[in-house]
Amino acid sequence: MEHPDPAAGPEAPLTELRDQIDAVDQQVMSLLARRLELVSEVGEVKGRHGLPIYAPDRERRMIAARRAEAERRGLPPDLIEDVLRRCMREAYAHEKNLGFSRQAPDLRHIVIVGGAGRMGRLFGRMLGLSGYEVRTLDRDDWDRADELLTDAGMVLVSVPIHDTVEVLHRLPALPEDCLLVDLTSTKGAPVAAMLEVHPGPVLGLHPMFGPDVDNLAKQVVAYVPGRFPDASTWLLEQIRLWGARLHEVSAEDHDHAMGLIQAQRHFATFANGLHLIREDRSLDELLALSSPIYRLELIMIGRLFAQSPELYADIIMASPDNLALIERYHDRFAEALEILRAGDREAFIARFREIGSWFGPHAERFLAESQTLLAHADAQR
Amino acid sequence: MEHPDPAAGPEAPLTELRDQIDAVDQQVMSLLARRLELVSEVGEVKGRHGLPIYAPDRERRMIAARRAEAERRGLPPDLIEDVLRRCMREAYAHEKNLGFSRQAPDLRHIVIVGGAGRMGRLFGRMLGLSGYEVRTLDRDDWDRADELLTDAGMVLVSVPIHDTVEVLHRLPALPEDCLLVDLTSTKGAPVAAMLEVHPGPVLGLHPMFGPDVDNLAKQVVAYVPGRFPDASTWLLEQIRLWGARLHEVSAEDHDHAMGLIQAQRHFATFANGLHLIREDRSLDELLALSSPIYRLELIMIGRLFAQSPELYADIIMASPDNLALIERYHDRFAEALEILRAGDREAFIARFREIGSWFGPHAERFLAESQTLLAHADAQR
Repeated sequence: MEHPDPAAGPEAPLTELRDQIDAVDQQVMSLLARRLELVSEVGEVKGRHGLPIYAPDRERRMIAARRAEAERRGLPPDLIEDVLRRCMREAYAHEKNLGFSRQAPDLRHIVIVGGAGRMGRLFGRMLGLSGYEVRTLDRDDWDRADELLTDAGMVLVSVPIHDTVEVLHRLPALPEDCLLVDLTSTKGAPVAAMLEVHPGPVLGLHPMFGPDVDNLAKQVVAYVPGRFPDASTWLLEQIRLWGARLHEVSAEDHDHAMGLIQAQRHFATFANGLHLIREDRSLDELLALSSPIYRLELIMIGRLFAQSPELYADIIMASPDNLALIERYHDRFAEALEILRAGDREAFIARFREIGSWFGPHAERFLAESQTLLAHADAQR
Repeated sequence: MEHPDPAAGPEAPLTELRDQIDAVDQQVMSLLARRLELVSEVGEVKGRHGLPIYAPDRERRMIAARRAEAERRGLPPDLIEDVLRRCMREAYAHEKNLGFSRQAPDLRHIVIVGGAGRMGRLFGRMLGLSGYEVRTLDRDDWDRADELLTDAGMVLVSVPIHDTVEVLHRLPALPEDCLLVDLTSTKGAPVAAMLEVHPGPVLGLHPMFGPDVDNLAKQVVAYVPGRFPDASTWLLEQIRLWGARLHEVSAEDHDHAMGLIQAQRHFATFANGLHLIREDRSLDELLALSSPIYRLELIMIGRLFAQSPELYADIIMASPDNLALIERYHDRFAEALEILRAGDREAFIARFREIGSWFGPHAERFLAESQTLLAHADAQR
């Protein structure tokens, strides 16, 4: 190897090294392109054979093997894992669904009430790709409702949250063995209404994602058993085959969690925005001085206000339970503030430890996970 | 190319494809290892020639070129940018500082008061690598203070926040042209005290990072001009050469921003933790049902409680201004809650729009940035 003359300027060796980095990057790009192709071929083979797109165990084993290999080579395992996960995310996002094996071979046709809406269309597409006969009952089809619903094997209700209960009551009597399912983002009232209007099998679903996804890989679908759970086993298996993760929950626990996840979270973000405009300092300066954590906070606050105010008004005002939950949060903030006003360092520390034990081992895990995330967020600026 | 028999099982073609993906991943790992080596050689050349480690413009141009190249190849540009940024982050994190060119050739020796503390040691190391003579005045050295400080070219005070003002008043008279600098995380009181005890040049610094960093690449250092700013130009240039980003700010704006960034942010997280343990539902269930946004929220809450309660008590209780700021936040939350109690959808929407215009174009930018981040966070689970 030729040694550079230390007395010479830095330009020549730097240019040479940068050219070599360029060449490495070109090869990396070719390999990543090849990897995406191969993964998409895997998806095709799986689709032809009705295999699930997303195989969590296989993915975990693959990552573990690559990390071990990185370690052997003296490469940072986290670097390799992050790069692979980024590639897998790209692959999942663009995976085209080609078809799935049908889990209920003898099921009669399916009717999607609200099937012209976005979520209804998504489920219609997935069910169609799985070999079911799917018919749509939308706003203008109620005069044909009896005809459409006679002999239906499953009725799936996918209408706006405020219309769900009313639409359920408008349904004619369904065949006794017909499975009645809804996709509403609250579960208490819809599941109760389904049980009321239909004596046969009932299942509540909440797809925890928007209708824009290309596929269901890794998405979560919560489900609330209603009546005759055996009659919906095939549907849960079908959804699992689409790549989604299923989570069973009671209607009450589901709705409480949604209050936290949607209403309270978004409302607190709104209140943070209100606080910032009242303080009215320079946002640019705040950004320049931000720690990675606060930068993330600003991003998560500001992003809300690029979206539809009507949508968030509806989410937050959806139920009186939300208001009660937010009132309780406000009271607990006041309780914490009382400690601060009193300057009671010991009380703060005691309460802090108590909360820490509630989080248990999750706290450490979250800390580790957040380091990765914050480093990622920080690298973007 | 051999075509697989569509009637055959999926195992054979899947195994073949997976073997090919394995082979691609092996090559990617070799290339990434090579890339890290090359980047570290660049760092060595730069170090030998006193060039800055971090060159923002060069980095931007490189990323733009690679994105364009990805586009030409039909590869997702975001994928390439994310992979490259991840590699650069790895490289920066492990960059060893070898030396920097000295920006003030004629400066007399530097004394670091509190130079045995962690932040003091970091600055001592960086100044040493830049060719300055650095001496330390720590807790046990006050009987030698006169001797150490006589003829000092710069005195850098790096002591715990509560001791700063007292330590400044303990200093003997410094040479009139000596530059007096502090590293405290509040700026109002320390800068005022420096101006009081020393008639010569004064500069307030706040390194916005912990003392554990391997180097200062991309880190932010806030600075508050005190007196005779020309006398500290060399120091700011020196810090820039270490790779840091400098941000000028007034002491008042700095301290207000820190109230938001540190005290209020951490206190709200504490209150959120208190709320969660009072609601006392299953954390596992909450995680299973979480949207990507709420999952991030839970992580950012839980991470706090894996850390030192004493540290956060000190940060939050550091100044009465913090309490006042948090009281104002609580009042604004109450103001927002009033809208909700009244069920006033129109008022909510109007206020939402008002906050949106305060954020201006940042809101859209934050929304875009958050999508990337949330996808990244989500890929980790």
